[in-house]
Order: sequence, then C-alpha cells, then structure tokens
Amino acid sequence: MVTPLLDDDQVDKQGLERLVEHLIKGRVHGIFVLGTTGEAPSLSYTVRQEVIQLTCNQSNGRLPVVVGITDCAPSESLKLAEWAAQSGASAVVAAPPYYFGMDQAELVSYYQKLADRSPLPVYLYNMPSHTKINISLQTVQILAQHPNIIGLKDSSGNAVYFNAVLHALKEDPSFGILVGPEEMMASAVLMGGHGGVNGGANMFPSLYVDLYHAALNKDCDKVAELQGYIMEISRRIYCAGNNGGGYLQGLKAALAFLGICSGHVASPLRNFNDEETTRIKEHLCYFKERNFVG
Amino acid sequence: MVTPLLDDDQVDKQGLERLVEHLIKGRVHGIFVLGTTGEAPSLSYTVRQEVIQLTCNQSNGRLPVVVGITDCAPSESLKLAEWAAQSGASAVVAAPPYYFGMDQAELVSYYQKLADRSPLPVYLYNMPSHTKINISLQTVQILAQHPNIIGLKDSSGNAVYFNAVLHALKEDPSFGILVGPEEMMASAVLMGGHGGVNGGANMFPSLYVDLYHAALNKDCDKVAELQGYIMEISRRIYCAGNNGGGYLQGLKAALAFLGICSGHVASPLRNFNDEETTRIKEHLCYFKERNFVG
Amino acid sequence: MVTPLLDDDQVDKQGLERLVEHLIKGRVHGIFVLGTTGEAPSLSYTVRQEVIQLTCNQSNGRLPVVVGITDCAPSESLKLAEWAAQSGASAVVAAPPYYFGMDQAELVSYYQKLADRSPLPVYLYNMPSHTKINISLQTVQILAQHPNIIGLKDSSGNAVYFNAVLHALKEDPSFGILVGPEEMMASAVLMGGHGGVNGGANMFPSLYVDLYHAALNKDCDKVAELQGYIMEISRRIYCAGNNGGGYLQGLKAALAFLGICSGHVASPLRNFNDEETTRIKEHLCYFKERNFVG
Amino acid sequence: MVTPLLDDDQVDKQGLERLVEHLIKGRVHGIFVLGTTGEAPSLSYTVRQEVIQLTCNQSNGRLPVVVGITDCAPSESLKLAEWAAQSGASAVVAAPPYYFGMDQAELVSYYQKLADRSPLPVYLYNMPSHTKINISLQTVQILAQHPNIIGLKDSSGNAVYFNAVLHALKEDPSFGILVGPEEMMASAVLMGGHGGVNGGANMFPSLYVDLYHAALNKDCDKVAELQGYIMEISRRIYCAGNNGGGYLQGLKAALAFLGICSGHVASPLRNFNDEETTRIKEHLCYFKERNFVG
Repeated sequence: MVTPLLDDDQVDKQGLERLVEHLIKGRVHGIFVLGTTGEAPSLSYTVRQEVIQLTCNQSNGRLPVVVGITDCAPSESLKLAEWAAQSGASAVVAAPPYYFGMDQAELVSYYQKLADRSPLPVYLYNMPSHTKINISLQTVQILAQHPNIIGLKDSSGNAVYFNAVLHALKEDPSFGILVGPEEMMASAVLMGGHGGVNGGANMFPSLYVDLYHAALNKDCDKVAELQGYIMEISRRIYCAGNNGGGYLQGLKAALAFLGICSGHVASPLRNFNDEETTRIKEHLCYFKERNFVG
Repeated sequence: MVTPLLDDDQVDKQGLERLVEHLIKGRVHGIFVLGTTGEAPSLSYTVRQEVIQLTCNQSNGRLPVVVGITDCAPSESLKLAEWAAQSGASAVVAAPPYYFGMDQAELVSYYQKLADRSPLPVYLYNMPSHTKINISLQTVQILAQHPNIIGLKDSSGNAVYFNAVLHALKEDPSFGILVGPEEMMASAVLMGGHGGVNGGANMFPSLYVDLYHAALNKDCDKVAELQGYIMEISRRIYCAGNNGGGYLQGLKAALAFLGICSGHVASPLRNFNDEETTRIKEHLCYFKERNFVG
Repeated sequence: MVTPLLDDDQVDKQGLERLVEHLIKGRVHGIFVLGTTGEAPSLSYTVRQEVIQLTCNQSNGRLPVVVGITDCAPSESLKLAEWAAQSGASAVVAAPPYYFGMDQAELVSYYQKLADRSPLPVYLYNMPSHTKINISLQTVQILAQHPNIIGLKDSSGNAVYFNAVLHALKEDPSFGILVGPEEMMASAVLMGGHGGVNGGANMFPSLYVDLYHAALNKDCDKVAELQGYIMEISRRIYCAGNNGGGYLQGLKAALAFLGICSGHVASPLRNFNDEETTRIKEHLCYFKERNFVG
Repeated sequence: MVTPLLDDDQVDKQGLERLVEHLIKGRVHGIFVLGTTGEAPSLSYTVRQEVIQLTCNQSNGRLPVVVGITDCAPSESLKLAEWAAQSGASAVVAAPPYYFGMDQAELVSYYQKLADRSPLPVYLYNMPSHTKINISLQTVQILAQHPNIIGLKDSSGNAVYFNAVLHALKEDPSFGILVGPEEMMASAVLMGGHGGVNGGANMFPSLYVDLYHAALNKDCDKVAELQGYIMEISRRIYCAGNNGGGYLQGLKAALAFLGICSGHVASPLRNFNDEETTRIKEHLCYFKERNFVG
C-alpha cells in the first residue's frame, strides 16, 4: 500500500481510508503498509505510527495488516513492531539495515535478535537494489528455522534466486514466499510461490487478485491475458518518467487521477512535473476503457 | 555447449565429438558454442575456430549450430562470424563489448554495424553480470527492427526484464526470445518465452528438452516434477565450490565423471580441487540413480 | 568521534566524557559526532540525542561540535538539527538519504530544502559506498552557493573527485573541503584540502593533528614520517578482522584497550571475537612503544 | 599513448609517428601503448601488432616502450608479449581478464602463470571500473615477489588503496608504483609514488613531466600551479561530452585540433558530434594562449 500524503509530514487520512476500502473491495488477502512503495524510510516516525493506526482502524480485522519496520537502528524497528502489535497488525516485514555493509553472518544474527524480540511474527524482505545486500539462500534457510520468522518477501526480481528459495523450502509450506515485482508475480505463483505484494494493486486490486488465482489454478490462458494488462501498467504508468525512474511517482499520480488519494510523493523523491502527470492521465484512459478500476 | 579442453590451448576433440552426439541423442533443438559456458573469452582465436569447425562437422546439418562471437574488438567478432558462416553455422550470438563502459546509444550503434556486416543472422546476448551493461528494453525494441537481428538470449536472471521484453515484442513472433539460466527456463516458457539455452543440457539434454516441452504444453504438473530436478542440479553441481562460485567447474567435472569429455576449465578460472571434485562425484549418484544420463 | 556504548541502547557516559577530554587534550580543531564512525544509523533517536547533549556539555564551548544528522526521513534529520542547535553545536553534516535511488536533481533539491530549514549551517557528506550515490562535482558547485551550506566532507576515497572539487571551488575559500579517509588526509591537505575528519584521531588525536600541520606547512619529510604511522594504524587496527571488514570493530577494540571507552559495536555490526581482539591488543603494543597515546 | 586511427581498422601511421616525436620532444620517460587510453580491447590483433611495431621503430631505443597485453585469453596476451619482445619493447602491462568474475586466488594464479611465460617483465594494471575486480593489496604483495613482475599501474583513483600499496612495498623500491589518473598524479608522487601514466601527456607532455618533477622535488608551489592546469584539462577536455562520458573522445578530438594525429575513436565508443567537437576547439584556445603545446 502506498502512503497517501498531503505533504511530506501529513497523512492524507481520508485518502488512506478510501484506499483501504478500495483494496478490501478488490478482494486482496492482506495489506502491507510502510514498505518501499509505502515510502517508509522517507517518513517521520510520527507519520509511520499514524499510518499503522489508521490502517488497522479502518480495516478493523477484515483482513490482516502487515507492517514494514525496516530501519537501520534495530531498536527503532522494534518500537514500530510494538506499535504495530498494539494497533492490531498481524505481522511485520523487515529488510536488512541498509547503511553499513554487512556479511551474511551479521545478517543472520541481526534477524535472529529482531525475531527474538518482535511481538509479531517477522517476514524477511529481500531488496538488494535498495539495501545493497542480498539475503542469501543459505541465510534464508537458517532463518526459516526461527519460530518467529514466517516468510520472505523477495523484491530482487531475480527468478533464479526466487526459484532456488522455493525449492529449498518446499518441505516447509508454512514458510510464506512472496514476490515483490508484479511483472513476475504470475510466473512466481505458477512455479509454486505463495503470492505477490504488488504495488499496482493500489490502483486495480481485483486485477492482481484475479491474476493470482489464475496462476494458482494453472489457468495459463487467463494468466496470459491478465499478464498483458500488468505489463501495460508497467509500461504506461511506471515508466512514464522523463529520466528512467518514476514507478512510485507514476503510481501515485494515477491514484490521484482515479480519485483514490493524494498523489504527493515524499521528499527526497521528486513529484512528477506537468508533462509527466499529463502522460499518466492519458495512459489511464487505456485502463478505464477496459473497466479496470476497482 | 561447454568447450571440451585437454589443456588451456588444446581442444579435446574426441570429447567434443562425443558431446555433440550426446546432445543430438538428447533431442536438443540446436547447439550454441562459444558462449559464457563455452568459456569463449578465455580461449585463443585458434581454439575458437577449431571449436566452430569441429562442431559443425560433427553435427553435419542435423541441427542448427549457433556461434558466440562476443569480443571487445568488432573486427575480431566479424572474423569469427565469417568463419562460422564458412563452417556451416546458422547464426551468431554477440554480447556487448565488455571493457569500455557504453551508453545505450553506443550499444544500438554497435549492434547495427555488427548486424550490417555479419554474414549470419545475429542474436543479442544480454549478460550484465559479465559485460557491466544491460541491453535496455528500448534498445532491444530498436534492434529487433534490424533485418539481420533475429532474437535475444537473456542471461540476466531478471524476470521483470524478461517479461517486459516478451510483452514488448509479442507482435513480432519471428524475434526469438531465449533465456539463459535454466532455473527460470520453465517459467520463462510458461510466460511465452521461446526456449532456453541451458548449460545443464550438456549433462542431461533430454531432461531440459522434456521440461521445455512440458512448459510449452502448459503441463504444470510435469513442469513441477522436472523443475525439481533442475533445481537439484543447480544445488548439487553448480554450487559445489568451496567459495561460492563453481558453476562451470561443477558442470565440467560432472561431464568428466559421466565419461563425456575432459573436465579441464581454462585459465583464468581455476579447476576444482580434490575435495570439490569428490563432492561432484557423490552428487552425480543422485542423478544416476534416477536414470538421467542421456 | 566514535559513540561509546555499554550496549546497543545505552551510552557509555563516562567513556564519552573521557573521550572528549582525550580529543581536546590531543588538540583537535573540532569534534564530529554521529557520523559513520559514530554508527549513527544504528542508534535509536534517544541515544543520538543523548550523544549530542553529552558531547556539547562536556566540550562546553572549548571547540566546535559538529553533528551528523543523516537520515532517510528529512523531518527526522531536521529534528536532530534542532536538537543540535539547542545543545550548542556549531554545524551539522548530512549524507544523502540512502534507501531510495535518487538522481542529482533530486539530490540538489533535497539539500536545498534541508539547508533552508536547518537552524545550523550544513556540511555535505559524500559517502557513496554507503549511500549508493556520489554527490557529483556539479551538484557540489550548485549547493556551495547556498548560504547555509558551508562545506563538504568527502569519504569517497576518490582522489580524482576530491581534487576536482578543490579545483572547482578554489575561488570560494569559505567553503570547507574535508577528507574522510585518514590514509589520504596528508595528500589531500598538501593539494589544498582544508582538513580531515579521521576516525583514528579517537585513539591518537595528536598524531593526526601533527600530520595535518605538517601537510599544511608543506613539510614533506614530516608528512612522510607521520604518514607511515597512519598506514600502520590502518594495517594493524582497521584490517585486523578475519573477514576483511573490521575498521570500526578494530578502532573500538583499541579504544577499550587504551582505557578510553567501552569497545561495544552496535548491532547490526558484530563485535570482534576473542582471536581478533587479541590481535588488536598485540598490535597496540607497536603504537604504545612509540608513545603515541594522547 | 592513444592509438591514432584513420578508421576502426586502420592505423594513422603518420599521426603515430608525429605523436611519438611529440612525446619524446616533451621529455616523457617512456611510452605506454595499448592501454585503456590506447583503446586496445577495441582493436583487432593485426592493428595491435602494427601499433607495437610502429612505435618501437619510431622511438628506436630513445626511450622504453611498454606494451599493454591485457586480454581475456591468456594465450593471446602471451602472443602480444612475444610480439612486443621481438619489436624491442621493454616491458608489458596486463590488467586482469575482464569477462569472468574471479577471486583473488585465481588472480594470483593468473598473474603468476603469465609472468612465468612472458618474455618481458610484467606490470600489474589495476583498473576495477573496467575489469570488475580490484587487485587487492595482499595480491599485489604476493605478486611483487615474482621476479618477472616489476610494478603496478593503479588506475582505480582510490588514494587509500594507492597509499596502502606504497606503504606495504616501501622496502622494495625496485617495484614500480605508477598512478593512472592524472588528476591525482602530483599527490601520488608527493606521497612517494614513482610516476604517472597520464593520458593528457599525449597533448601536453612537458606539462606532465614538469608536474612530475615538481612533485618529486617537493616543490609544492610549482605543484599547485601546474596542478591547476591539469584540472582545467580535465574540466575542459575530458568532461566536454554531452552525456557525462567523453574522456577519450575529448582527448582525441584535441589531438586532431593540435595537428598531431587523427581524432577517430574506435567502435564501440562513439565519436564526438559537431557540437562537442566545437566545444573542444574552443577550450583548446585556453591552453594555446598559455603556450602549452609541446
């Protein structure tokens, strides 16, 4: 879930409430707040706490809320985990600390201490492009044995790695293996992955839910059809920026045009300029014509 | 196809002939020599020419031979392409020059000039871990319009990229999109990819051919079964090195134990030590017991 | 300045006071707390505030205190800047936000907003190995024009970059250009750099002050002599870890043996094991014999 | 030394002869052909052999000629080394093979075998931006003991690394330690480095020779003066490209305007466009007015 913002330090509360309802109506199986798409590292702790509480209150037990607690300071991560537990969240997600370079032994130790002390079960979050470290297969295998570590969200985009994790842990079906990039969600589920945590579901949740079920049911024709739309979203919305980037900006601009929430992107990322925003607006017509909203 | 070597500068001719027969018996649809698995950059030009000629002679038109011509000097690449054409090869494969950093415009220009002058049709070869540059989606789209560029082999391991290429070029089915890493071959074909160029097929060609057909036929149960073996090969043979690496060393050591060809790996890569070689031998029992050879 | 810690969440107050006195006695020209060597990203905000206050109180105006406010959330950086101002610090230092990838335009905008709102003057902090982004020469030139941006600390280790910054800004001597890695401090000052912010000064402050003055006075013989000791510190203390890393662990272990402060390194980094600690102890004899302490 | 080219496959022989005379007149202490600035990896072997022979013939024993033999295939490197020996060159320079990822043990083994078989003494060439591997300090120390390995050219730009190598090998003054990037040549020599291998010396050899002698003599005022010109060359000639790159293009365009040799840059790098070329021409006035040519 994106974090709807009026400005860098102010949550768009009504937008957030609308977004939660939009997701629930779209039949998603859970809500993940304060991940990369949620811009968590750019947000103050006050804002992060507010997002947790508002989301838990609005969803009100209708589906699990999972909370990103990634931070370079372990004690700040744990404070967020405690706040999440008190607010009624179901689990937390933690990427590796991302300032100091670490080795895999330090990573194992880091996660073990975090999981020992977290009041909620922990998902590992592999995001090497942002954290500079890959959670190695061996590290995942060691950590999967910890009773309070219940899964992995892999956003590496690396299918060799993802399939290796799936294979290594196939005897342990309680360990959830989720994929980040939506462009590979269908193939990940076809190969045995347990689901996706996909940013585009903020816009069109039922499309992603349908694609997930098609892949789960090995309905390859349906997968091919829906995958085409996912790739169009990627091409038209995420790659609309003038300088290569723009996934988050495109996504939030689209959410604003869809009337779901404010499109503000928190500093240090820049907001789209008029030309880029106009492009998003035009591209959205493609999806509106196909009745995707909702 | 690996390059069977007696030592750094001497081809294992009989091993090469046995390997070609082994592959043909395993029903592969083509042979790719002098790629990364073929250790081409480590081989003298004399050895490379010999490998081209021996492979073309031995296969003798029974299946297409595709030749890697990757080189930092365009004129050396073209000499290899001419040699390949004269020897009876069907196509060539070229990764980007890998010493100087280039931008995408330079990459487009490089491939256009190469394709203009190549006597054989050209496959692009995306291998960013080794060449330091990713052939961007946009660059692939531009180059796909060149009449002498007929496809892409993607060894990035990045499923987001691979699926984006598939989607962008789906109106042009004559442009072949092949995947390098065997651990993601099945999912790539399930999503519409045209095939795999997989190192493990040197050992067990029919296994990879069967997996390809299972994926092509959307037989997801069969895919799941065979994928399991592919992942075991990856785990037992490619990851057997003491220091993380070892794909090529493991593969060649296995081929030696299978009696197919010499296991020598060309400098600058080191050969496995006794402990590592023994591990390969033990792991091979797993596959022999399952009657994979052939 | 390192952050003396009893454990991950508890400042070694007496150690911190001893360390401040040790530095002042060593004639350093200022104290920089909560940088990379200060492990700031690993510390809770409570601990960071405590470090600021204790250092300012202990130094009590005898020399300027400069405070690292690097954070991925701009509003958290500003809270630290305000705390620093209230505590009596002289300036703040900020590395780029280090989670999201940014371009140089976003970096310029980030720093401009930060400097607009910071109650204390701001030093840029270039640390690409940790932040994944280099503050380009052009970006430094643009930002140097901001009235509240007063200098750059460059920890890239890249002498080409450092000399280019020196050259580009030589008409603006009020813009301070400091170098991080002590192994290149002398050459940086010889070439016109304004000083060093060197971790080893925690142990032997007067050695670094003497080297700085030798370089400032173009006393190349003295530089050569003292540079030799700096390199021995690098070789014996910073490279003592079993697996390549260990700068911070070596430095803090040495400070403990010197009786200055606790040697605890905050999670996620690991503390040295017994073998590594013993090595530090032995290596310290080399420096003690040469009467470096102090 | 750059490689003067009429087109990708044809040496500008007269330009090469003029360039050799220009360098000798500029009092350089040796000539290094077929390095990165010499675009060796982009050139056919025929062209490389021609460059070796022409340079040796033209210099005719008046100063040592050192030849780059970097190649991914060890046997091709050795063929070049033999050709260099027969042509009268004094030494060879080899960067690590740059296609396959290697570890330091493989690097040690690679260089030992190369040096065992090379008819000329070998310089190590550290160029991690292009080869993807840093020759570690420990590896340099091991290789420095080989009787046929006589020095290191470091083009990493990393002053920490360079100073660590200087310090570690200071007891072995016969091992030559040279620096690549001219922007740090003076500081490298001030700290004890043995010289520079600087691309800009193609244009203004005596400027670089004078800077070297100033640094050798610890004449810091002279160093500061000349360093300013070096940095202007870097700023005006090497950074003139529209998209960030352009060192080689700028250098060769300048050589053409100076009437020394053809400005053609070999594929895959692009040649400057008219706008960029004009910029070089204008910038050259700055240096002509200051009487630098020669």
